[in-house]
Amino acid sequence: MRNRVEAIRDMMRSRGWDAVVLTGNDPHASEYSAPRWHQVAWVSGYTGEGDLVITEDHAGLWTDTRYFIQAERQLRGTGIELHKTRVQDQVLIPEWLAAQFAGYGEVVVAVDGLGMSASSVNEIREAVGVDRTAVADVPDLLSPLWTDRPEIPRTPVITLGAETVGWSRKQKIVWIRKWLADKGFDAILISALDEIAWMLNVRGSDVAYNPVVISYLLITSDTTQWFVRKGPADSEDSETSDSFYELTADGVNIQDYSDIAMALAGMVDDDYIKRLFVDSSTLNYNLYGILKENTLQDSVVAGKSPVALRKAVKNEVEIAGLKEAHLEDGLAMERFLFWLETMIKGGEPVNEYECSLKLHEFRSEIEGFRGESFETISAYGPSAALPHYVTPESGSAELYANGLYLCDSGGQYLFGTTDITRTVPLGPCSQLEKEDYTLVLKGHIALSRIVFPKGTAGCQLDVLARAPLWNSKRNFGHGTGHGVGFYLNVHEGPQDIRQNFNKQAFLPGMVTTDEPGIYREERHGVRHENVLLCVDAGENDFGRWLRFEPLTLCHFDTSVLLTELLDESEIRWLNDYNERVFRTLSPRLSPEVSQWLREKTLPITK
Amino acid sequence: MRNRVEAIRDMMRSRGWDAVVLTGNDPHASEYSAPRWHQVAWVSGYTGEGDLVITEDHAGLWTDTRYFIQAERQLRGTGIELHKTRVQDQVLIPEWLAAQFAGYGEVVVAVDGLGMSASSVNEIREAVGVDRTAVADVPDLLSPLWTDRPEIPRTPVITLGAETVGWSRKQKIVWIRKWLADKGFDAILISALDEIAWMLNVRGSDVAYNPVVISYLLITSDTTQWFVRKGPADSEDSETSDSFYELTADGVNIQDYSDIAMALAGMVDDDYIKRLFVDSSTLNYNLYGILKENTLQDSVVAGKSPVALRKAVKNEVEIAGLKEAHLEDGLAMERFLFWLETMIKGGEPVNEYECSLKLHEFRSEIEGFRGESFETISAYGPSAALPHYVTPESGSAELYANGLYLCDSGGQYLFGTTDITRTVPLGPCSQLEKEDYTLVLKGHIALSRIVFPKGTAGCQLDVLARAPLWNSKRNFGHGTGHGVGFYLNVHEGPQDIRQNFNKQAFLPGMVTTDEPGIYREERHGVRHENVLLCVDAGENDFGRWLRFEPLTLCHFDTSVLLTELLDESEIRWLNDYNERVFRTLSPRLSPEVSQWLREKTLPITK
Repeated sequence: MRNRVEAIRDMMRSRGWDAVVLTGNDPHASEYSAPRWHQVAWVSGYTGEGDLVITEDHAGLWTDTRYFIQAERQLRGTGIELHKTRVQDQVLIPEWLAAQFAGYGEVVVAVDGLGMSASSVNEIREAVGVDRTAVADVPDLLSPLWTDRPEIPRTPVITLGAETVGWSRKQKIVWIRKWLADKGFDAILISALDEIAWMLNVRGSDVAYNPVVISYLLITSDTTQWFVRKGPADSEDSETSDSFYELTADGVNIQDYSDIAMALAGMVDDDYIKRLFVDSSTLNYNLYGILKENTLQDSVVAGKSPVALRKAVKNEVEIAGLKEAHLEDGLAMERFLFWLETMIKGGEPVNEYECSLKLHEFRSEIEGFRGESFETISAYGPSAALPHYVTPESGSAELYANGLYLCDSGGQYLFGTTDITRTVPLGPCSQLEKEDYTLVLKGHIALSRIVFPKGTAGCQLDVLARAPLWNSKRNFGHGTGHGVGFYLNVHEGPQDIRQNFNKQAFLPGMVTTDEPGIYREERHGVRHENVLLCVDAGENDFGRWLRFEPLTLCHFDTSVLLTELLDESEIRWLNDYNERVFRTLSPRLSPEVSQWLREKTLPITK
Repeated sequence: MRNRVEAIRDMMRSRGWDAVVLTGNDPHASEYSAPRWHQVAWVSGYTGEGDLVITEDHAGLWTDTRYFIQAERQLRGTGIELHKTRVQDQVLIPEWLAAQFAGYGEVVVAVDGLGMSASSVNEIREAVGVDRTAVADVPDLLSPLWTDRPEIPRTPVITLGAETVGWSRKQKIVWIRKWLADKGFDAILISALDEIAWMLNVRGSDVAYNPVVISYLLITSDTTQWFVRKGPADSEDSETSDSFYELTADGVNIQDYSDIAMALAGMVDDDYIKRLFVDSSTLNYNLYGILKENTLQDSVVAGKSPVALRKAVKNEVEIAGLKEAHLEDGLAMERFLFWLETMIKGGEPVNEYECSLKLHEFRSEIEGFRGESFETISAYGPSAALPHYVTPESGSAELYANGLYLCDSGGQYLFGTTDITRTVPLGPCSQLEKEDYTLVLKGHIALSRIVFPKGTAGCQLDVLARAPLWNSKRNFGHGTGHGVGFYLNVHEGPQDIRQNFNKQAFLPGMVTTDEPGIYREERHGVRHENVLLCVDAGENDFGRWLRFEPLTLCHFDTSVLLTELLDESEIRWLNDYNERVFRTLSPRLSPEVSQWLREKTLPITK
């Protein structure tokens, strides 16, 4: 890795750069990126999230609390220093660069503009000094050094019909054109991959776990142009050919991914586009710069894409699909938990990685299963103390008949996306494990059953999941809930449930996770997660009310609960939920698993 | 009132104004204003909060939910229309003016700049159109018509010593000069009256309930100038003379209130002030305009005054005083509640207003009592459904031996300010009254006993007080908590507990109310309010923790509680609180009241 940093420094010297800033982001600011954009990993060997800064005498990696342990391990011996973020005295990249180059004249900061947003580049310019910062934007900056760099992915493209997603792509295009007309725009450039997949009702697998297609979508009042990576026509697989044919028949003009910049510039020059809407949070600095350089100039209006909110509010067809997906996923989970208990009770050796394989096996039996929605976190004992534990393929921990096992996983199905965490006792547990298990469940229940006025945002609900923990001076360092896509990204906005002040109110049809947790380094971790659907709860003198309805169907283990910490209404909630799980799933389970689930879901009392 | 609106229209015609905007604010954006600034009331007869707009063919009053009923009643027959704010389809004054004058050329909007902030005038200019809006700023605009307009108040000024407030004025001036030096300012103009009173350790009674002195305070690196309304030296009362002497001895230069603008301009011209800090939220548009017109120009930096936060964090001496104030106030409250119960049980006739007089009588017996901290809300049955009910001097409702009586009141003492609401049953209550009483108390308890991580803001706690209500589809339309001054304003910032996204985190030493409620028009109202002190709760693996400690000492009535709606920990909290109230207060109460309080505070069980 030292060689790679040095190779970058050679490049810096020959080009006159003072600093290089690299991210692991793809050109669409996707949460996960394809291997082509694993630039930070290629340079440093560190495989988590984070950004890299290289100067003549320093190489540093910036990442947050979730990745400290992993980063410290993977950076050992590389000479790259860890800079911690989301800690009290954090110094972020812009401020660090400003301090580093205080007293300098002009500072040349090189970036790969494909992997950065305009706002993050601007933060650097403002911190270092707008007048004295020269930004060298070099797309694919690493390519000359990274000789075996992977190509931009090009996986088969499938289409989904209105019977699956409710709205046809034609309806969606009519809707966005009305939005353009209402707002006085000629065109919208959609750069977020999940928004493109939603708009066109297409899915691919260009990014691990996220069923998206690397592309841009440009919609004007009378054209729909999809800029997508495609091979020579004859080399396309038949599925993709069929999809492209269907899209073309629907009026979608398919163009090459690399032509986006030129096409945009041309349309602007021809005065075909006078006012273009872009979403600055997902448009990369490179393309934004090209737009700004062209005659478009002030005609680029950056804002929040309307697609994100529309996509977040699921329609009736999508909701029916999601319910089906969670039922199927719940069956797989229960079969898995039964298998696990049988293995442990039988004294059979099993490790964390084998568990994740077994769960995959159960999900694979479901028709329409398209893979996991994220990498399964299969974590026993101390492993679960890392909220984002990566279960290693070799050398993962053996499970024993004591303590807690945590499994956070989800599936992508043609008819929906799931995300579930269950923490289960494998045998005797400590008092602390039992307390943590119970208190996290109290938080989960409080959020799950809240009724709230229309207009309430997630940050106004977040404390409900934390209060039972706070009251015994415990807490967790991640958000409580995120939106979930419909056979799309497992993390989506615009709503969430966090302490951050996100003003987006919940709307009926929105989907969110409810996943409080607790993590004790080198001891154990607990997380209880269901996916909830926001539904209308009627109107009265006080206004209109909303509530949540759990979509997830998988029992919560009651054997380690400290019932003295639960009140009667919490016990009632738990008994009702477990009973519903049993009644819904048991007809589809084998007699053996069904009998086991009956015992697991028997009502408890105080 | 029609005549007054018409007289304003005559003025508009002769001066060429298209609209006049009037507020009831004093020149310091105080929450309450002295009668001189009751401009809205003088023009319209309406005595609540609100702003007035008069055009050639329309006169309108803008006010929020709290005042709809009162405004409708008081505006009847005036020809002035009510414009509702804090409702879903609200049209605020700027947008209303914009719509009204759409299609016009230049629009001249006249304001009394003494009663408006720069930001509110700017909102009007931006909505109507910056280029075509001419603002005519006419200080004391109404004075030519309002021949018997009251003078600017000039009440006696007293001083408080460090033994009462902890920090001497000299210490405070040293502190603010350090702040000025750190931030690179030459001077700070303090315009908020409670900030001035805090800085100089002075109190007056220029504004009802708020023990402040109408004035401005200008502090530079070597001068402290207090611009205050003063008579000829020989006409001052001796208390004020002594205070002025003490202040002068401490280096405070006392100048006339009306000289502030000239003095500031002079100091700027002399290059004595090059960078002046002002707080735009309390500096009026008129003075801000004068500063901007002078050579100062870009040297005026508007921001959030540092005094507000420093003042909000009470020191040990202030905390000791507040505890004493709440003990004395609690004794008065218990004596009052005992008296009330005796009257009702004895079948003696008593009305709401007599109750407020009686409570005043008990408070008046306390040494150091300086008057109420706001107008007592003494409300029986349907009256209590108005959160800001004004108890009329004549014709207030008679109390009977059934239903709920609500009393929200507070005292100003030389050693602290109190604010308490108790809702008590006067006899049999309906099931709905009992439910509301119990659910509001659940919310009060949840907030009162929460332990929370350092860095938590009030808006992140607000839902705790609402969740028990929300879960049975009930809610309340006001904030849950506000800061309380130390023998100062009963409402102070910068922290609060509301749904609004106020990022100010709680700090140990901050004081807040905890006052959820529920209001049912024409039926009843419930509110349970204590003042809480934020205190440190230690540190552990999860970080530093804070919690609240109730300062208020007055029992909660348990006779109408539906215990089946409370869990054991809530019952324990209530029993502990009531027991503490009894133990603390009983030694100071007469045997008769003490015995009664013993019975009132006996532990309850589920």
